[in-house]
Amino acid sequence: MHNVYVIEGEKTVHEYLQNEFLIDNIYATEEWITENRVLLQNAKMQVTAASAAELNRISTLSTPNQVVALAKIETHALPDKINTGLHLLLENIQDPGNLGTIIRTADWFGIENIFCSAGCVDAYNAKVVQATMGSLARVKLYYTDLHALLAAITLPVYAATLDGENIFTARVAKDAALIIGNESKGITQTLANAASKKISIPRYGKAESLNAAVATAVILAGIKCYSPR
Amino acid sequence: MHNVYVIEGEKTVHEYLQNEFLIDNIYATEEWITENRVLLQNAKMQVTAASAAELNRISTLSTPNQVVALAKIETHALPDKINTGLHLLLENIQDPGNLGTIIRTADWFGIENIFCSAGCVDAYNAKVVQATMGSLARVKLYYTDLHALLAAITLPVYAATLDGENIFTARVAKDAALIIGNESKGITQTLANAASKKISIPRYGKAESLNAAVATAVILAGIKCYSPR
Repeated sequence: MHNVYVIEGEKTVHEYLQNEFLIDNIYATEEWITENRVLLQNAKMQVTAASAAELNRISTLSTPNQVVALAKIETHALPDKINTGLHLLLENIQDPGNLGTIIRTADWFGIENIFCSAGCVDAYNAKVVQATMGSLARVKLYYTDLHALLAAITLPVYAATLDGENIFTARVAKDAALIIGNESKGITQTLANAASKKISIPRYGKAESLNAAVATAVILAGIKCYSPR
Repeated sequence: MHNVYVIEGEKTVHEYLQNEFLIDNIYATEEWITENRVLLQNAKMQVTAASAAELNRISTLSTPNQVVALAKIETHALPDKINTGLHLLLENIQDPGNLGTIIRTADWFGIENIFCSAGCVDAYNAKVVQATMGSLARVKLYYTDLHALLAAITLPVYAATLDGENIFTARVAKDAALIIGNESKGITQTLANAASKKISIPRYGKAESLNAAVATAVILAGIKCYSPR
Protein backbone atom coordinates (compact mmCIF):
# COMPACT_ATOMS: atom_id res chain seq x y z
CA MET A 1 0.00 0.00 0.00
CA HIS A 2 1.15 3.49 -0.87
CA ASN A 3 1.22 6.51 1.36
CA VAL A 4 -1.30 8.82 -0.18
CA TYR A 5 -2.88 12.24 0.31
CA VAL A 6 -6.11 13.81 -0.88
CA ILE A 7 -6.17 16.30 -3.74
CA GLU A 8 -9.31 18.20 -4.67
CA GLY A 9 -10.62 20.41 -7.42
CA GLU A 10 -10.61 19.89 -11.17
CA LYS A 11 -7.66 22.15 -11.85
CA THR A 12 -5.37 20.37 -9.40
CA VAL A 13 -6.46 16.91 -10.54
CA HIS A 14 -5.79 17.92 -14.16
CA GLU A 15 -2.30 19.09 -13.23
CA TYR A 16 -1.57 15.84 -11.43
CA LEU A 17 -2.90 13.83 -14.39
CA GLN A 18 -0.12 15.26 -16.53
CA ASN A 19 2.07 12.66 -14.85
CA GLU A 20 0.28 9.33 -14.99
CA PHE A 21 2.19 7.93 -12.02
CA LEU A 22 1.17 10.54 -9.48
CA ILE A 23 -2.38 9.44 -8.77
CA ASP A 24 -3.56 6.23 -7.14
CA ASN A 25 -7.32 6.63 -7.11
CA ILE A 26 -9.87 9.01 -8.54
CA TYR A 27 -13.40 9.47 -7.20
CA ALA A 28 -15.51 11.54 -9.55
CA THR A 29 -19.02 12.11 -10.81
CA GLU A 30 -20.09 10.07 -13.88
CA GLU A 31 -20.24 13.37 -15.73
CA TRP A 32 -16.62 14.25 -14.92
CA ILE A 33 -15.43 10.76 -15.87
CA THR A 34 -17.21 11.01 -19.24
CA GLU A 35 -15.81 14.49 -19.92
CA ASN A 36 -12.28 13.38 -19.06
CA ARG A 37 -12.38 9.99 -20.81
CA VAL A 38 -9.41 10.81 -23.05
CA LEU A 39 -7.26 11.97 -20.14
CA LEU A 40 -8.06 8.86 -18.13
CA GLN A 41 -7.63 6.45 -21.03
CA ASN A 42 -3.96 5.63 -20.56
CA ALA A 43 -3.81 6.31 -16.88
CA LYS A 44 -2.98 3.52 -14.49
CA MET A 45 -5.04 4.65 -11.49
CA GLN A 46 -8.35 3.27 -10.32
CA VAL A 47 -11.37 5.42 -11.19
CA THR A 48 -14.53 5.18 -9.09
CA ALA A 49 -17.82 6.90 -9.83
CA ALA A 50 -19.34 8.78 -6.91
CA SER A 51 -22.37 11.01 -6.46
CA ALA A 52 -21.95 14.77 -5.96
CA ALA A 53 -23.27 14.31 -2.42
CA GLU A 54 -20.64 11.65 -1.63
CA LEU A 55 -17.87 13.87 -3.03
CA ASN A 56 -19.00 16.83 -0.98
CA ARG A 57 -18.85 14.72 2.15
CA ILE A 58 -15.17 13.83 1.63
CA SER A 59 -14.17 17.21 0.22
CA THR A 60 -12.84 20.01 2.43
CA LEU A 61 -13.61 22.63 -0.22
CA SER A 62 -16.59 24.89 0.27
CA THR A 63 -17.55 24.86 -3.41
CA PRO A 64 -19.09 21.76 -5.00
CA ASN A 65 -16.46 19.37 -6.21
CA GLN A 66 -16.67 17.03 -9.20
CA VAL A 67 -13.54 15.08 -8.42
CA VAL A 68 -11.34 14.05 -5.50
CA ALA A 69 -8.20 11.95 -5.90
CA LEU A 70 -5.62 10.14 -3.85
CA ALA A 71 -2.09 11.13 -4.85
CA LYS A 72 1.02 9.17 -3.96
CA ILE A 73 3.46 10.65 -1.49
CA GLU A 74 6.81 10.55 -3.22
CA THR A 75 9.73 9.98 -0.91
CA HIS A 76 13.27 10.81 -1.92
CA ALA A 77 16.52 9.65 -0.38
CA LEU A 78 18.30 12.54 1.31
CA PRO A 79 21.13 13.81 -0.92
CA ASP A 80 24.57 12.89 0.47
CA LYS A 81 26.09 16.15 -0.61
CA ILE A 82 24.53 19.49 -1.51
CA ASN A 83 26.97 21.53 -3.54
CA THR A 84 24.91 23.14 -6.29
CA GLY A 85 21.50 24.80 -6.75
CA LEU A 86 19.30 26.78 -4.38
CA HIS A 87 17.68 25.01 -1.43
CA LEU A 88 15.16 25.87 1.27
CA LEU A 89 15.39 24.81 4.91
CA LEU A 90 12.13 25.37 6.81
CA GLU A 91 12.28 25.31 10.59
CA ASN A 92 8.98 24.79 12.41
CA ILE A 93 6.67 26.46 9.88
CA GLN A 94 3.34 25.94 11.65
CA ASP A 95 0.65 27.50 9.50
CA PRO A 96 -0.64 25.21 6.72
CA GLY A 97 -1.36 28.15 4.39
CA ASN A 98 2.19 29.41 4.85
CA LEU A 99 3.79 26.03 4.14
CA GLY A 100 1.61 25.55 1.06
CA THR A 101 2.38 29.03 -0.24
CA ILE A 102 6.11 28.49 0.38
CA ILE A 103 5.99 25.24 -1.62
CA ARG A 104 4.18 27.03 -4.49
CA THR A 105 6.74 29.86 -4.36
CA ALA A 106 9.66 27.41 -4.31
CA ASP A 107 8.20 25.73 -7.41
CA TRP A 108 7.97 29.14 -9.15
CA PHE A 109 11.60 29.99 -8.38
CA GLY A 110 12.89 26.53 -9.32
CA ILE A 111 14.20 25.56 -5.89
CA GLU A 112 15.96 22.19 -5.91
CA ASN A 113 14.97 20.81 -2.52
CA ILE A 114 12.76 21.81 0.40
CA PHE A 115 13.90 20.43 3.74
CA CYS A 116 11.38 20.65 6.60
CA SER A 117 12.21 20.21 10.27
CA ALA A 118 10.08 17.70 12.17
CA GLY A 119 8.39 20.70 13.81
CA CYS A 120 6.85 21.84 10.51
CA VAL A 121 3.16 21.19 9.86
CA ASP A 122 2.43 18.05 7.78
CA ALA A 123 2.79 19.01 4.10
CA TYR A 124 0.09 16.50 3.11
CA ASN A 125 -2.62 18.08 5.24
CA ALA A 126 -5.54 19.32 3.12
CA LYS A 127 -4.94 23.02 3.77
CA VAL A 128 -1.28 22.80 2.78
CA VAL A 129 -2.08 20.79 -0.35
CA GLN A 130 -4.73 23.34 -1.34
CA ALA A 131 -2.34 26.29 -0.91
CA THR A 132 0.36 24.64 -3.04
CA MET A 133 -1.97 24.85 -6.09
CA GLY A 134 -0.48 21.70 -7.59
CA SER A 135 3.15 22.50 -6.82
CA LEU A 136 3.40 19.75 -4.21
CA ALA A 137 3.62 17.25 -7.09
CA ARG A 138 6.63 19.05 -8.58
CA VAL A 139 8.91 19.88 -5.64
CA LYS A 140 11.27 17.60 -3.77
CA LEU A 141 10.28 17.69 -0.12
CA TYR A 142 11.97 16.03 2.85
CA TYR A 143 11.34 15.96 6.60
CA THR A 144 14.70 15.77 8.31
CA ASP A 145 16.89 17.13 11.07
CA LEU A 146 18.17 20.48 9.81
CA HIS A 147 21.24 20.56 12.05
CA ALA A 148 22.39 17.20 10.72
CA LEU A 149 21.59 18.32 7.18
CA LEU A 150 23.91 21.33 7.42
CA ALA A 151 26.87 18.93 7.54
CA ALA A 152 26.01 17.79 4.00
CA ILE A 153 25.74 21.33 2.63
CA THR A 154 28.93 22.80 1.21
CA LEU A 155 27.14 25.93 -0.12
CA PRO A 156 26.74 29.27 1.69
CA VAL A 157 23.82 29.07 4.14
CA TYR A 158 21.69 32.19 4.68
CA ALA A 159 19.45 32.68 7.71
CA ALA A 160 16.42 34.96 7.24
CA THR A 161 16.28 37.18 10.33
CA LEU A 162 15.17 40.69 11.25
CA ASP A 163 18.73 41.90 11.92
CA GLY A 164 20.75 40.64 8.97
CA GLU A 165 22.32 42.22 5.90
CA ASN A 166 20.01 43.71 3.26
CA ILE A 167 19.30 40.89 0.78
CA PHE A 168 19.29 43.45 -2.05
CA THR A 169 22.77 44.78 -1.33
CA ALA A 170 24.56 41.90 0.49
CA ARG A 171 26.95 39.67 -1.44
CA VAL A 172 25.00 36.45 -1.80
CA ALA A 173 25.59 33.41 -3.97
CA LYS A 174 22.91 32.06 -6.29
CA ASP A 175 23.84 28.51 -5.31
CA ALA A 176 22.99 28.48 -1.64
CA ALA A 177 20.69 27.27 1.14
CA LEU A 178 18.17 29.60 2.77
CA ILE A 179 16.79 28.97 6.27
CA ILE A 180 13.31 30.30 7.12
CA GLY A 181 12.17 30.10 10.74
CA ASN A 182 8.94 29.76 12.67
CA GLU A 183 6.23 32.41 12.14
CA SER A 184 6.45 33.90 15.61
CA LYS A 185 9.78 32.70 16.99
CA GLY A 186 12.00 32.89 13.90
CA ILE A 187 15.02 30.59 13.52
CA THR A 188 16.31 28.90 16.67
CA GLN A 189 19.58 30.40 17.89
CA THR A 190 21.76 27.35 17.31
CA LEU A 191 20.55 26.95 13.73
CA ALA A 192 20.95 30.68 12.97
CA ASN A 193 24.49 30.53 14.37
CA ALA A 194 25.33 27.69 12.01
CA ALA A 195 24.51 29.87 8.98
CA SER A 196 27.17 31.69 6.94
CA LYS A 197 25.25 34.97 6.97
CA LYS A 198 22.07 36.53 8.34
CA ILE A 199 20.00 38.33 5.73
CA SER A 200 16.96 40.60 5.97
CA ILE A 201 14.45 42.47 3.87
CA PRO A 202 14.74 46.25 4.25
CA ARG A 203 11.82 47.81 6.08
CA TYR A 204 10.39 51.17 5.04
CA GLY A 205 7.26 51.27 7.21
CA LYS A 206 6.15 50.11 10.63
CA ALA A 207 5.04 46.47 10.45
CA GLU A 208 7.01 44.42 12.96
CA SER A 209 7.61 41.56 10.55
CA LEU A 210 6.48 40.02 7.29
CA ASN A 211 4.43 36.86 6.80
CA ALA A 212 6.78 33.82 6.51
CA ALA A 213 5.73 32.94 2.95
CA VAL A 214 6.04 36.56 1.85
CA ALA A 215 9.52 36.84 3.38
CA THR A 216 10.60 33.59 1.71
CA ALA A 217 9.42 34.86 -1.68
CA VAL A 218 11.12 38.25 -1.40
CA ILE A 219 14.43 36.68 -0.35
CA LEU A 220 14.27 34.01 -3.07
CA ALA A 221 13.57 36.77 -5.61
CA GLY A 222 16.51 38.71 -4.21
CA ILE A 223 18.81 35.72 -4.64
CA LYS A 224 17.52 34.54 -8.04
CA CYS A 225 16.63 37.76 -9.85
CA TYR A 226 18.92 40.41 -8.50
CA SER A 227 21.97 40.72 -10.67
CA PRO A 228 24.67 41.68 -11.22
CA ARG A 229 25.96 42.21 -7.71
CA MET B 1 -22.03 55.66 16.86
CA HIS B 2 -18.71 54.70 15.34
CA ASN B 3 -18.13 52.06 12.75
CA VAL B 4 -16.07 49.47 14.54
CA TYR B 5 -14.40 46.10 13.99
CA VAL B 6 -13.24 43.37 16.31
CA ILE B 7 -9.57 42.88 17.17
CA GLU B 8 -8.36 39.92 19.17
CA GLY B 9 -5.25 38.72 20.91
CA GLU B 10 -3.07 40.48 23.46
CA LYS B 11 -0.35 41.42 21.01
CA THR B 12 -2.71 43.15 18.60
CA VAL B 13 -4.59 44.94 21.38
CA HIS B 14 -1.27 46.17 22.80
CA GLU B 15 -0.28 47.53 19.39
CA TYR B 16 -3.59 49.33 19.04
CA LEU B 17 -3.29 50.76 22.55
CA GLN B 18 -0.19 52.65 21.44
CA ASN B 19 -2.62 55.12 19.90
CA GLU B 20 -5.27 55.96 22.49
CA PHE B 21 -7.81 56.98 19.88
CA LEU B 22 -7.96 53.70 17.97
CA ILE B 23 -10.04 51.63 20.38
CA ASP B 24 -13.65 52.16 21.40
CA ASN B 25 -14.27 49.28 23.80
CA ILE B 26 -12.21 46.61 25.50
CA TYR B 27 -13.63 43.35 26.88
CA ALA B 28 -11.08 41.53 29.00
CA THR B 29 -10.63 39.23 31.96
CA GLU B 30 -10.21 40.90 35.38
CA GLU B 31 -6.70 39.49 35.37
CA TRP B 32 -5.80 41.17 32.05
CA ILE B 33 -7.28 44.49 33.20
CA THR B 34 -5.22 44.39 36.39
CA GLU B 35 -2.03 43.51 34.54
CA ASN B 36 -2.57 46.32 32.03
CA ARG B 37 -3.75 48.96 34.47
CA VAL B 38 -0.98 51.38 33.55
CA LEU B 39 -1.64 51.06 29.83
CA LEU B 40 -5.37 51.63 30.32
CA GLN B 41 -4.96 54.51 32.77
CA ASN B 42 -4.99 57.37 30.30
CA ALA B 43 -6.99 55.65 27.63
CA LYS B 44 -10.37 57.01 26.65
CA MET B 45 -12.11 53.76 25.75
CA GLN B 46 -14.63 51.85 27.80
CA VAL B 47 -13.25 48.78 29.56
CA THR B 48 -15.57 45.91 30.49
CA ALA B 49 -14.64 42.87 32.54
CA ALA B 50 -15.68 39.53 31.02
CA SER B 51 -15.12 35.91 31.95
CA ALA B 52 -12.77 33.73 29.90
CA ALA B 53 -15.80 31.73 28.76
CA GLU B 54 -17.58 34.85 27.52
CA LEU B 55 -14.47 35.99 25.65
CA ASN B 56 -14.07 32.61 24.01
CA ARG B 57 -17.65 32.80 22.77
CA ILE B 58 -17.04 36.08 20.94
CA SER B 59 -13.50 35.27 19.82
CA THR B 60 -12.76 33.64 16.47
CA LEU B 61 -9.31 32.53 17.64
CA SER B 62 -8.76 28.91 18.49
CA THR B 63 -6.50 29.64 21.44
CA PRO B 64 -7.93 31.06 24.67
CA ASN B 65 -8.15 34.81 24.55
CA GLN B 66 -7.79 37.25 27.46
CA VAL B 67 -8.94 40.31 25.58
CA VAL B 68 -11.14 41.35 22.67
CA ALA B 69 -11.59 44.98 21.59
CA LEU B 70 -13.66 47.07 19.24
CA ALA B 71 -11.46 49.31 17.09
CA LYS B 72 -12.71 52.33 15.17
CA ILE B 73 -12.80 52.18 11.41
CA GLU B 74 -10.92 55.24 10.24
CA THR B 75 -12.21 56.72 7.04
CA HIS B 76 -10.14 59.08 4.93
CA ALA B 77 -11.23 61.44 2.21
CA LEU B 78 -9.96 60.27 -1.18
CA PRO B 79 -6.91 62.32 -2.20
CA ASP B 80 -7.70 64.75 -5.05
CA LYS B 81 -4.34 64.22 -6.66
CA ILE B 82 -1.77 61.44 -6.32
CA ASN B 83 1.59 62.69 -7.51
CA THR B 84 4.10 61.32 -5.00
CA GLY B 85 4.77 58.12 -3.04
CA LEU B 86 4.03 54.46 -3.78
CA HIS B 87 0.39 53.29 -3.84
CA LEU B 88 -1.43 49.97 -4.13
CA LEU B 89 -4.59 49.39 -6.16
CA LEU B 90 -6.24 46.07 -5.33
CA GLU B 91 -8.83 44.75 -7.77
CA ASN B 92 -11.20 42.08 -6.46
CA ILE B 93 -8.87 40.43 -3.95
CA GLN B 94 -11.18 37.76 -2.58
CA ASP B 95 -9.26 35.77 -0.03
CA PRO B 96 -9.26 37.32 3.47
CA GLY B 97 -5.82 35.93 4.28
CA ASN B 98 -4.42 37.45 1.10
CA LEU B 99 -5.90 40.89 1.75
CA GLY B 100 -4.65 40.85 5.34
CA THR B 101 -1.18 39.76 4.28
CA ILE B 102 -1.10 42.45 1.57
CA ILE B 103 -2.02 45.11 4.16
CA ARG B 104 0.75 43.86 6.46
CA THR B 105 3.22 43.86 3.57
CA ALA B 106 2.16 47.37 2.50
CA ASP B 107 2.78 48.56 6.06
CA TRP B 108 6.27 46.99 5.99
CA PHE B 109 7.18 48.70 2.71
CA GLY B 110 5.74 52.06 3.76
CA ILE B 111 3.02 52.24 1.10
CA GLU B 112 1.10 55.55 1.22
CA ASN B 113 -2.39 54.38 0.30
CA ILE B 114 -4.20 51.12 -0.40
CA PHE B 115 -7.18 51.48 -2.73
CA CYS B 116 -9.55 48.50 -2.88
CA SER B 117 -12.18 47.93 -5.56
CA ALA B 118 -15.70 47.26 -4.34
CA GLY B 119 -15.12 43.63 -5.36
CA CYS B 120 -12.44 43.11 -2.69
CA VAL B 121 -13.31 41.20 0.48
CA ASP B 122 -14.24 43.41 3.47
CA ALA B 123 -10.99 44.48 5.16
CA TYR B 124 -12.66 44.51 8.57
CA ASN B 125 -13.66 40.85 8.48
CA ALA B 126 -12.03 38.89 11.32
CA LYS B 127 -9.76 36.80 9.07
CA VAL B 128 -8.40 39.86 7.28
CA VAL B 129 -7.84 41.72 10.56
CA GLN B 130 -6.01 38.71 11.99
CA ALA B 131 -3.70 38.40 8.97
CA THR B 132 -2.76 42.11 9.09
CA MET B 133 -1.09 41.53 12.49
CA GLY B 134 -1.91 45.05 13.63
CA SER B 135 -1.04 46.80 10.37
CA LEU B 136 -4.67 47.64 9.63
CA ALA B 137 -4.39 50.42 12.24
CA ARG B 138 -1.43 51.98 10.44
CA VAL B 139 -2.31 51.92 6.73
CA LYS B 140 -4.63 54.23 4.83
CA LEU B 141 -7.29 52.11 3.20
CA TYR B 142 -10.06 53.16 0.82
CA TYR B 143 -12.82 51.31 -1.06
CA THR B 144 -13.33 53.12 -4.33
CA ASP B 145 -13.76 52.76 -8.08
CA LEU B 146 -10.28 52.09 -9.44
CA HIS B 147 -11.04 53.32 -12.95
CA ALA B 148 -12.20 56.68 -11.62
CA LEU B 149 -9.19 56.80 -9.29
CA LEU B 150 -6.73 56.48 -12.18
CA ALA B 151 -7.79 59.96 -13.35
CA ALA B 152 -6.38 61.41 -10.12
CA ILE B 153 -3.03 59.59 -10.44
CA THR B 154 -0.30 61.46 -12.30
CA LEU B 155 2.36 58.82 -11.45
CA PRO B 156 3.34 55.80 -13.58
CA VAL B 157 0.86 52.95 -13.05
CA TYR B 158 2.16 49.36 -13.14
CA ALA B 159 -0.08 46.35 -13.68
CA ALA B 160 1.11 43.04 -12.21
CA THR B 161 0.52 40.40 -14.89
CA LEU B 162 2.08 37.13 -16.06
CA ASP B 163 3.29 38.61 -19.37
CA GLY B 164 4.90 41.92 -18.43
CA GLU B 165 8.45 43.23 -18.18
CA ASN B 166 10.73 41.73 -15.53
CA ILE B 167 10.32 43.91 -12.42
CA PHE B 168 14.01 43.42 -11.63
CA THR B 169 15.25 44.77 -14.97
CA ALA B 170 12.44 47.06 -16.19
CA ARG B 171 12.75 50.81 -15.77
CA VAL B 172 10.30 51.54 -12.97
CA ALA B 173 9.81 54.64 -10.87
CA LYS B 174 9.83 54.49 -7.08
CA ASP B 175 6.90 56.92 -6.95
CA ALA B 176 4.19 54.96 -8.66
CA ALA B 177 0.94 53.03 -8.37
CA LEU B 178 0.84 49.22 -8.55
CA ILE B 179 -2.30 47.31 -9.55
CA ILE B 180 -2.76 43.76 -8.21
CA GLY B 181 -5.64 41.70 -9.62
CA ASN B 182 -7.93 38.93 -8.50
CA GLU B 183 -6.37 35.64 -7.34
CA SER B 184 -7.64 33.55 -10.25
CA LYS B 185 -8.63 36.06 -12.92
CA GLY B 186 -5.90 38.68 -12.57
CA ILE B 187 -6.53 42.32 -13.50
CA THR B 188 -9.54 43.04 -15.70
CA GLN B 189 -8.56 43.94 -19.26
CA THR B 190 -9.77 47.54 -19.21
CA LEU B 191 -7.90 48.32 -16.00
CA ALA B 192 -4.71 46.60 -17.22
CA ASN B 193 -4.93 48.61 -20.45
CA ALA B 194 -5.10 51.84 -18.46
CA ALA B 195 -1.72 51.08 -16.83
CA SER B 196 1.54 52.61 -18.08
CA LYS B 197 3.34 49.28 -18.06
CA LYS B 198 2.78 45.59 -17.35
CA ILE B 199 5.31 44.05 -14.99
CA SER B 200 6.02 40.46 -13.95
CA ILE B 201 8.17 38.38 -11.64
CA PRO B 202 10.60 36.14 -13.53
CA ARG B 203 9.76 32.46 -13.28
CA TYR B 204 12.48 29.81 -12.95
CA GLY B 205 10.35 26.76 -12.22
CA LYS B 206 6.94 25.37 -13.14
CA ALA B 207 4.28 26.89 -10.88
CA GLU B 208 1.62 28.54 -13.01
CA SER B 209 1.39 31.62 -10.81
CA LEU B 210 2.28 33.03 -7.42
CA ASN B 211 -0.05 33.73 -4.51
CA ALA B 212 -1.42 37.30 -4.76
CA ALA B 213 0.15 38.49 -1.48
CA VAL B 214 3.49 36.92 -2.41
CA ALA B 215 3.44 38.58 -5.84
CA THR B 216 2.56 41.94 -4.27
CA ALA B 217 5.49 41.65 -1.86
CA VAL B 218 8.05 40.66 -4.48
CA ILE B 219 7.01 43.51 -6.78
CA LEU B 220 6.98 46.07 -3.95
CA ALA B 221 10.46 44.88 -2.96
CA GLY B 222 11.53 45.21 -6.60
CA ILE B 223 10.28 48.79 -6.73
CA LYS B 224 11.48 49.92 -3.28
CA CYS B 225 14.73 48.03 -2.77
CA TYR B 226 16.20 47.51 -6.19
CA SER B 227 18.59 50.29 -7.05
CA PRO B 228 20.25 51.81 -8.91
CA ARG B 229 18.42 51.11 -12.13
